[in-house]
Amino acid sequence: MATSSPSFRLGSGIGAHPAARFVDAVLRGVGQVMFQNNPLTGAIFLLAILVNSLVAREALGAQGVSALMLFGGAILGTVVGTATAKLLGADRGLIGAGLYGFNGTLVGIAFPFYLQTTPLMIVYLVIGAAFSSIIMSTLLSVLGQWEIPALTAPFVLTTWLFLVPVWSFAGLRGTGFLPLPGLSSAPASAAALDFSGFWQGTLEGVGEVMFQIHWLAGIIFLIGILVNSRISFVFALIGSLIGLIVGYAMGASTEMLSLGLYGFNPVLTGIALGGFFFVLDWKSALYAIFGIVVTTIIMGALVSALAPLGLPALTWPFILVTWFFIGAKPFFSQLRAVPPAKATTPEGNLSLAV
Amino acid sequence: MATSSPSFRLGSGIGAHPAARFVDAVLRGVGQVMFQNNPLTGAIFLLAILVNSLVAREALGAQGVSALMLFGGAILGTVVGTATAKLLGADRGLIGAGLYGFNGTLVGIAFPFYLQTTPLMIVYLVIGAAFSSIIMSTLLSVLGQWEIPALTAPFVLTTWLFLVPVWSFAGLRGTGFLPLPGLSSAPASAAALDFSGFWQGTLEGVGEVMFQIHWLAGIIFLIGILVNSRISFVFALIGSLIGLIVGYAMGASTEMLSLGLYGFNPVLTGIALGGFFFVLDWKSALYAIFGIVVTTIIMGALVSALAPLGLPALTWPFILVTWFFIGAKPFFSQLRAVPPAKATTPEGNLSLAV
Amino acid sequence: MATSSPSFRLGSGIGAHPAARFVDAVLRGVGQVMFQNNPLTGAIFLLAILVNSLVAREALGAQGVSALMLFGGAILGTVVGTATAKLLGADRGLIGAGLYGFNGTLVGIAFPFYLQTTPLMIVYLVIGAAFSSIIMSTLLSVLGQWEIPALTAPFVLTTWLFLVPVWSFAGLRGTGFLPLPGLSSAPASAAALDFSGFWQGTLEGVGEVMFQIHWLAGIIFLIGILVNSRISFVFALIGSLIGLIVGYAMGASTEMLSLGLYGFNPVLTGIALGGFFFVLDWKSALYAIFGIVVTTIIMGALVSALAPLGLPALTWPFILVTWFFIGAKPFFSQLRAVPPAKATTPEGNLSLAV
Repeated sequence: MATSSPSFRLGSGIGAHPAARFVDAVLRGVGQVMFQNNPLTGAIFLLAILVNSLVAREALGAQGVSALMLFGGAILGTVVGTATAKLLGADRGLIGAGLYGFNGTLVGIAFPFYLQTTPLMIVYLVIGAAFSSIIMSTLLSVLGQWEIPALTAPFVLTTWLFLVPVWSFAGLRGTGFLPLPGLSSAPASAAALDFSGFWQGTLEGVGEVMFQIHWLAGIIFLIGILVNSRISFVFALIGSLIGLIVGYAMGASTEMLSLGLYGFNPVLTGIALGGFFFVLDWKSALYAIFGIVVTTIIMGALVSALAPLGLPALTWPFILVTWFFIGAKPFFSQLRAVPPAKATTPEGNLSLAV
Repeated sequence: MATSSPSFRLGSGIGAHPAARFVDAVLRGVGQVMFQNNPLTGAIFLLAILVNSLVAREALGAQGVSALMLFGGAILGTVVGTATAKLLGADRGLIGAGLYGFNGTLVGIAFPFYLQTTPLMIVYLVIGAAFSSIIMSTLLSVLGQWEIPALTAPFVLTTWLFLVPVWSFAGLRGTGFLPLPGLSSAPASAAALDFSGFWQGTLEGVGEVMFQIHWLAGIIFLIGILVNSRISFVFALIGSLIGLIVGYAMGASTEMLSLGLYGFNPVLTGIALGGFFFVLDWKSALYAIFGIVVTTIIMGALVSALAPLGLPALTWPFILVTWFFIGAKPFFSQLRAVPPAKATTPEGNLSLAV
Repeated sequence: MATSSPSFRLGSGIGAHPAARFVDAVLRGVGQVMFQNNPLTGAIFLLAILVNSLVAREALGAQGVSALMLFGGAILGTVVGTATAKLLGADRGLIGAGLYGFNGTLVGIAFPFYLQTTPLMIVYLVIGAAFSSIIMSTLLSVLGQWEIPALTAPFVLTTWLFLVPVWSFAGLRGTGFLPLPGLSSAPASAAALDFSGFWQGTLEGVGEVMFQIHWLAGIIFLIGILVNSRISFVFALIGSLIGLIVGYAMGASTEMLSLGLYGFNPVLTGIALGGFFFVLDWKSALYAIFGIVVTTIIMGALVSALAPLGLPALTWPFILVTWFFIGAKPFFSQLRAVPPAKATTPEGNLSLAV
């Protein structure tokens, strides 16, 4: 969400070729999905998606998902989101930092993950990615009033609004990952989680932020974060781990836990509250950990609440909790908040705050 | 949504008799349903409703709808909405421009369209129309912060909140137009749409803005718009047409398409974004057309998303899209936005913008 | 919702012992559930809950509710909500007035009312009460922009978000009061309500604000209000009475009516709009009564709308109506609004307004 630039630069300097600047913005956009304003991180994230497309090809295909389309969609979505903002005259600094790209990235992966790949779906994806950049501007304006960041809300709103019509439009077909509408009912007592399920779930929790189902992708994502911020790396890992433990303690479905589905929202809450939007100290660290716990509970809430519509929770638990935890800042004097426009990396925030 | 007055005046001048001013405000209120601050337009719209009540009497009666109550309800709702604002001390300029009337108009038509006409329902309608004027003030205050117009949100919120209780209150009975609560399921492949269905759907799309099911009403509405603004006329027609085409391309239900049910939201989005809240040029025209396309998709979303509650989508797709597209304006320098308080007609905006 | 202090003081004066100040804040927090910033009122409210736990022990036990846990939860929730605000550095004036307590009070009663009492549930309650204080700060900041009070929204949002996971987490079990997810269907014609059902329903409507099912608790709550404000007492009673009558006229379920379930939201709307957030005169009194009527209708709406999720309506009908009715104030010159930060008691508002 940061507008200022980190150390690594590909082509956003004054005088760089417009095409290089655009590629730089697109890569930063991919990185911004996890708050990393760094084109190298973005490139590593794309590598993770590509690796996942190869190693999980069969598992994805069994659900009707075109594995390579996840990779292609990520790039297409980021490009469309960024280009829409350029055409409409959005601020160059925001575009350059990738802030009009990351929602498009997620739209570009989510659409082929939940909808079968057809020419119509690809047109649909382009429309959705462009729409997400319009929502981004509205949220920047509305939430900016209280210095609350838009986060991935444009992605979630777009994807929800574009996934429900699968039940109205015969031209769209859901994949095996799209839930069927149904009423919730009480879960059976959860089975035990073994050691390998535990670590796999933790790593997949990181990968599931971008719908990547293989633990190897999770490791590559973590490396991508690490090259930009050690603190974000730690909170991403802590987030996924605590999410898994809390979900297990609450008796969540063991299958969902081992797939990392209780982990990806806490990963994002962990990165956001763990040093990024608040200067890291032991108070804000505890605040972030409390946010991670609440995020996990709200994931359980959304899974049940969205069941009648057949919609996935996406990153809404993270968005809701992070909005509440950041929105509260003017009333809590024990926390040192960083305005969204000034947040760079947890390390950068620390050096500014001294 | 405009507060300033157009060329045609019935009785809003200083010195006019209070009763004449009130009638003028009521007629403008009816016109404002489609952004036409013009009492003549309002009168023509009422004529359209009356004609529909006569020619579609049997079709409406078969669903349990009292045809003449649609006409009577439109007038009653507008009067109650306007009078409530007067009693509570709302701004005379806003009242005179019909801005406290148009939500009452729609409440007054929607209630007898979805609920069987009984004395209790008429009391209910009066309460709902008065409530819509209170919501209007709240939205004017809250959304005014970002110069985002309230649109028909007071109508939709009131109608949703007053329609769901049909399942809690034995004193209310739904008509055949009120959907039964149920879970969505994938649609069958859509049938072909013939030439007459195509034109009928386009005209009925205009009429459905006010729940009018006969194509003749659609033509009269278009005339009502034309007497006030040629640009709005064009965008109303384009909106309904594109809505129909996009819905067809997506594989929407042919029955819904030929009834104009994918058209009425795009009609409103077309008028709102097509020169009314943005100065018309080729960029804003493309922006409006993109808004029309997204509105059609979101109509499909709401039909499915509201199915478990048994609620109709009403004009919410239009409201949602128009809010996002207008809310984004401070961040998009390529568009010339017109503040809601200064918007008159697309033609008026053009002359001001020169 | 008032920050200034009423006549009765336990320990909030300068120089009072911190522990006494904390107890005072907790008791005021309990009183603030019904807008009474008075520790004596809070103590009487706790007495009402204790009495209910004793006299309704069997009826509660039959639904799987631990009666004494309602009493213990009320205290625990208020303490946790207040302590969270203290730890995070919230304003002492707000904490002292009990504004960080009342949502915790309600969370503390609602959780053992809807969820079976287990060690995990108690941890869950503590997390929820702490979270409600964070939401409170966010709403104070966001809604403060328009001088709209947060009301019991932090309680409702927390409770909804923590109740739905009962269908995702095997570690939680609902009591007999938690509705099962299901689709709404039209109600049978309502049976007649006899004289004793009428008065019982009216008194239980007051008690149901805090989930107390015995009419005796309702009487004690009324006494608690009376010691602080006669006007609030009258509007609480009027609210419950009109709620019952309107619900009956609409054909609501006789069982729900006689349990006071159509009364508790109107009680709160009555107190809030009846002299608390508007200076009492005949205009604002009529406005409050209209608000009470609309609240009852919206209760019917939420009962049906939340059925597919298996969630109770809680105090959302009151919150929604009161937000709309207060949010409208800048546009209605006939009403004299009292800013939330200055509201004390209806009597206090009257003396200030002269």
